[in-house]
Amino acid sequence: MSDLLRLRPAATPAMIAVFDDNATIAHACAFEMALARAQAAEGLIPPAVADAIARGVAAVRVDPADLADEAALAGTLAIPLVARLRAGLMGEAAAALHHGATSQDVADSVLMMQLRAAHALIAVDVRRVTAALRRHALAHRETPAVGRTLLQDALPVAFGLRLAQAAAGIAEASAALDEAVARHAILQLGGAAGTRRGMEGRGDAVARHMAGELRLTAGAPWHARRTGLAAIGASLGILIGALGKLARDVSLLAQNAIGEAREPVIAGRGGSSAMAHKRNPTGCQVALSAATRAPGLVASLLAGLPQEQERGLGGWQAEGPVLADLCLLASGSAAAMAVVAEGLEIDAEAIARNRTAAGMGEDLGESAAIIAALSGHED
Amino acid sequence: MSDLLRLRPAATPAMIAVFDDNATIAHACAFEMALARAQAAEGLIPPAVADAIARGVAAVRVDPADLADEAALAGTLAIPLVARLRAGLMGEAAAALHHGATSQDVADSVLMMQLRAAHALIAVDVRRVTAALRRHALAHRETPAVGRTLLQDALPVAFGLRLAQAAAGIAEASAALDEAVARHAILQLGGAAGTRRGMEGRGDAVARHMAGELRLTAGAPWHARRTGLAAIGASLGILIGALGKLARDVSLLAQNAIGEAREPVIAGRGGSSAMAHKRNPTGCQVALSAATRAPGLVASLLAGLPQEQERGLGGWQAEGPVLADLCLLASGSAAAMAVVAEGLEIDAEAIARNRTAAGMGEDLGESAAIIAALSGHED
Amino acid sequence: MSDLLRLRPAATPAMIAVFDDNATIAHACAFEMALARAQAAEGLIPPAVADAIARGVAAVRVDPADLADEAALAGTLAIPLVARLRAGLMGEAAAALHHGATSQDVADSVLMMQLRAAHALIAVDVRRVTAALRRHALAHRETPAVGRTLLQDALPVAFGLRLAQAAAGIAEASAALDEAVARHAILQLGGAAGTRRGMEGRGDAVARHMAGELRLTAGAPWHARRTGLAAIGASLGILIGALGKLARDVSLLAQNAIGEAREPVIAGRGGSSAMAHKRNPTGCQVALSAATRAPGLVASLLAGLPQEQERGLGGWQAEGPVLADLCLLASGSAAAMAVVAEGLEIDAEAIARNRTAAGMGEDLGESAAIIAALSGHED
Amino acid sequence: MSDLLRLRPAATPAMIAVFDDNATIAHACAFEMALARAQAAEGLIPPAVADAIARGVAAVRVDPADLADEAALAGTLAIPLVARLRAGLMGEAAAALHHGATSQDVADSVLMMQLRAAHALIAVDVRRVTAALRRHALAHRETPAVGRTLLQDALPVAFGLRLAQAAAGIAEASAALDEAVARHAILQLGGAAGTRRGMEGRGDAVARHMAGELRLTAGAPWHARRTGLAAIGASLGILIGALGKLARDVSLLAQNAIGEAREPVIAGRGGSSAMAHKRNPTGCQVALSAATRAPGLVASLLAGLPQEQERGLGGWQAEGPVLADLCLLASGSAAAMAVVAEGLEIDAEAIARNRTAAGMGEDLGESAAIIAALSGHED
Repeated sequence: MSDLLRLRPAATPAMIAVFDDNATIAHACAFEMALARAQAAEGLIPPAVADAIARGVAAVRVDPADLADEAALAGTLAIPLVARLRAGLMGEAAAALHHGATSQDVADSVLMMQLRAAHALIAVDVRRVTAALRRHALAHRETPAVGRTLLQDALPVAFGLRLAQAAAGIAEASAALDEAVARHAILQLGGAAGTRRGMEGRGDAVARHMAGELRLTAGAPWHARRTGLAAIGASLGILIGALGKLARDVSLLAQNAIGEAREPVIAGRGGSSAMAHKRNPTGCQVALSAATRAPGLVASLLAGLPQEQERGLGGWQAEGPVLADLCLLASGSAAAMAVVAEGLEIDAEAIARNRTAAGMGEDLGESAAIIAALSGHED
Repeated sequence: MSDLLRLRPAATPAMIAVFDDNATIAHACAFEMALARAQAAEGLIPPAVADAIARGVAAVRVDPADLADEAALAGTLAIPLVARLRAGLMGEAAAALHHGATSQDVADSVLMMQLRAAHALIAVDVRRVTAALRRHALAHRETPAVGRTLLQDALPVAFGLRLAQAAAGIAEASAALDEAVARHAILQLGGAAGTRRGMEGRGDAVARHMAGELRLTAGAPWHARRTGLAAIGASLGILIGALGKLARDVSLLAQNAIGEAREPVIAGRGGSSAMAHKRNPTGCQVALSAATRAPGLVASLLAGLPQEQERGLGGWQAEGPVLADLCLLASGSAAAMAVVAEGLEIDAEAIARNRTAAGMGEDLGESAAIIAALSGHED
Repeated sequence: MSDLLRLRPAATPAMIAVFDDNATIAHACAFEMALARAQAAEGLIPPAVADAIARGVAAVRVDPADLADEAALAGTLAIPLVARLRAGLMGEAAAALHHGATSQDVADSVLMMQLRAAHALIAVDVRRVTAALRRHALAHRETPAVGRTLLQDALPVAFGLRLAQAAAGIAEASAALDEAVARHAILQLGGAAGTRRGMEGRGDAVARHMAGELRLTAGAPWHARRTGLAAIGASLGILIGALGKLARDVSLLAQNAIGEAREPVIAGRGGSSAMAHKRNPTGCQVALSAATRAPGLVASLLAGLPQEQERGLGGWQAEGPVLADLCLLASGSAAAMAVVAEGLEIDAEAIARNRTAAGMGEDLGESAAIIAALSGHED
Repeated sequence: MSDLLRLRPAATPAMIAVFDDNATIAHACAFEMALARAQAAEGLIPPAVADAIARGVAAVRVDPADLADEAALAGTLAIPLVARLRAGLMGEAAAALHHGATSQDVADSVLMMQLRAAHALIAVDVRRVTAALRRHALAHRETPAVGRTLLQDALPVAFGLRLAQAAAGIAEASAALDEAVARHAILQLGGAAGTRRGMEGRGDAVARHMAGELRLTAGAPWHARRTGLAAIGASLGILIGALGKLARDVSLLAQNAIGEAREPVIAGRGGSSAMAHKRNPTGCQVALSAATRAPGLVASLLAGLPQEQERGLGGWQAEGPVLADLCLLASGSAAAMAVVAEGLEIDAEAIARNRTAAGMGEDLGESAAIIAALSGHED
């Protein structure tokens, strides 16, 4: 199943590549190479053996489809992959490969490497969203507009206030994600029962070397302690929800009867197969669809927390696809809303017309000051 | 992203193929052909035009990757697909293609066709599970064993009772899924605003023709009425949970300190990358992992119910991938547990030994009668 | 915590009473009395003993607050309650009380009795909703109005079509709930390990007697087979979502810029503490709030499915409050939307004005026929 | 509905009191008094008026049941409450009461005050859990025990390692909750449309005064920006999951066939209504039940994120009960597991016997060092 048709509307090609089979295999190989190098650095194996492992692993070509069959049978990726890599090695190198590690060490570390890459992609698009929104918010910090509460006209607000609020929510969620990833994207290295047996007392040092090489955070094994991973997932879910708030507001503003803002016109986007004249808020659709799915995905991650004993059964195996889905949705949503925010068409005339029709004045209260505060700098 | 590594451990190849891009395109083409034939049957277009459409559509070759790029841009599959199909037609046929239909008609109908196919696959494996469990349950309807409640030894039960209960839960959930699919896998045909405009008053008849050809249920348009789809999703989630109950019990029985039952030995399955002697309950792992994920996915489907107006924004676009995931997990779980149930190694000696150690007698109450009742036939 | 302030906005007083402590205690007492009578009918105990139990149980006054302390300590309601009831009995009656039953038999049966009562309340309000909607739908089966898709003006529809669709979704969900309750609100009677030990082979007959008296369905014990309960919960969640769809649409119609329909004016309802002129869609608020909460609650129920062995640890203890919450939300939502539907103010002038402004004609397609089909009878 | 029977097994009396109607009313009154005092401090109203408001509000007695009826009708607590308070005031004080505030300002601020109080209670019990676990972990940092992975015997571990891991997960989740509460338990003060209109440009200063008095964090209005609240809820959910991991492990250790650890004996706790000899892991039951419910509750909170415009419809009204439930479950779980952890009966003989039976040696790898690292201090 390549499922381009189902995935592509929800995710960016770059993010799809992050969780691609080839990326997964490449990260798993990087794990094994880093393990060997770290063990050499700490004197557990001779440097020449580490070099042989690195060369051997780099030389192996693995077909994802073949590997997938075996991994599905084995119940874990590492067993068939390590067997293939080992087949390309000889003597000491063959024996030393994967030494002291367990399948879950590979699976979790690969997932964290993918998460790091995913986070970097998401952060770029989120910054586009918040920068654009703040620009609009400042431009409209004194534009009187209908404020709406409980879906009813309420009192006037600065048109920019709603956008500044949306931006602040997204920025807040994004900052929380940054922190969660920095703290919890931890190299996994515990060995079969999480004791780092076979590391000759150098397990912590080996883990630090590996973390440095693989650009992960160093820490104690966390095979059955999934609170960090859950925190990352929750941050992704909240970010998706914050982007959904923006999409909700833009799509409400874009209703024909209101018309105060619309998504930009993009050739090939937002059309209807039945109504040529129609302009659908397709970016908002992507973000709202993601926001519909994310809460359940976060629930799935949290459901896995009570994992059994040293390494659980079923719980952690559930997390990889769910975390990947959250990354795919976050990137799809952020990318879609970046385009929407950057090209947002704001109709000053409609804003004024609606306000007049609502019989509202121009007392914007402290809208401008709140916009400034939300935007993180004084006006 | 082919994602063989992430999907394959959780789903069967046959089910992955059901939701494959090529299957999606083929179903979409089948929809357009059936629409034309039905409109011809009802006199909306000449039969020759319907034939031309059928021939033209059948002749077009669509590359999923290309189509995916366009569909992602458009925000819907139907627009670029219909454009390609139309490019292969001429005159009246080009004009008549997709007449009266809207993107969501195609998307929903394709999803329902995939659901039908998915359901058939799931049903086969579920029957394997329940048949095997009932066989074991009857064989052990008088085998005294430790009954355990709140994870503590309680009172004796027939060893077969627990298996019969698991089988009954699975059968019950499966029957509910059968019903939900039969009722709610409804052809979608409403046109742009759900009024069947352009059908010359023959919309209901056209829909009945199409439903017959595509083996879907006929009914009124349900663009923004998603209760049926939610019911199907909930049934899938409950079935996955019922399979999870079996997996929970088998994995607890397989604990070394209990050892009353174990998964069958299968070459290449259940090994450990670090402990050659170990025999992991890999089938149970698949089912428990699915049961960890399913509740959140069902929540995602239900979250989409309050869809807006004639056709919503974001809600229904969220459902396809979620329903596909539920089918993938259900089939993966059922297939895994079919192997487990059929090959379940029951250790009569361990059962007796544990019961003796627990100081339990042989009063099995009405275990045998309950097993018979649960198994749906008199003993 | 009486929590009137938090519960009352979301639930009806009648439904709150269903899950009241006093109701819980009364149902538990009814269970014990029915058990005694059924055992007498089947010859397990003398009729005089059953009478003594019935009299004794009826005479005991239990203070919920005291009982709650003990139940919280014990981890189950039945232990302290049975102890109190037994203290009011003598000799054979004291010994026979609760004979053959276990705590979970009481807890589950009480929950099912409450569910039956809850269902009856919900059904009444749901019928009010659907009847009112169908009345409006038929009245407006030929009123041309703006059809809206993806939150954009699309093509004309009969104004009644949207209401008929909402009614059909609610009716469909409600019918599914009816079925689920009829099938799965089963008396629980299994005894400590689910074998009906101590029932002298008459367990099934005893259970049938009890089910008749307590107006529950008869069936095999289901201590760790929670698929039926999950199906009921999912039906409730889907019904709440269907009511949410109606609320979404009414609140969108009630936007000042659209104004095609509004909730009825009710003294004291929908005001604003800050804006005296404002008229908030408070009934829709209740229903949308319920629809926001329900999917997660359904997920919680499904998460409990993989319960351990004969009777699980934690799973079934989680279900009672969740199922109660779903009933409270369903009744609150149905009651609120009954008021909204019955008093819905439809503004024909605004409907016409908006359509004209949108430049839409009067081709309503087969709106009237679809309304008729959805309403379950020919026009 | 007092519902002591349903709540008490899941929550502590102290936490139930935090969300009690009387507490809710008291906090709402405190909000109104603080608002008046802050407005006096900033010169918006004369100090004498603020004093009159404070005296008047303090003197009013509100019956929760009466208020609940009106609040349910109004759709908000603040309207009937403010009306009652105002009835006790005269002239300027009556006019100045609630000036510049809106219902949601009260509702959100009250919720944050309750959250602060809840957090303090939870933190106490969590510290009891982690302190006790670390004590056991250090005592058993060199006790060889069976390590178990995928529910199978794997390799030896220090018995203390599993407890140290559980403690670290709980501590990590608890620290994240501390941070989330400190950051996001923000006073709500925005007025009807979130612009702080009517505050004469002193809104920010008024909010700072109020936050100081009510011990909340100061910040911009967040009526429709719910990311902070979602972050708090997610932290609660993760903490509940981390406590569930401990409960899972203790209950597995307490299985009769393993018997390496058990909950302490507590008079009246853990008994069975049918089996006098049985000792149920009732504390673990509470924690596992909470962990079953929490993920769905977190999903409900996240589902509310895409709130509409200045103040949403249905979304924020859904949050209060859900956040309260999460606090109740967290405190119930932490209190139950504090008792379990502090009194945990560790059976060194069973630990040794099981290890010998499994044929495992004493190579504990770096268990002791990992325990030390997890416990946050060098050994």
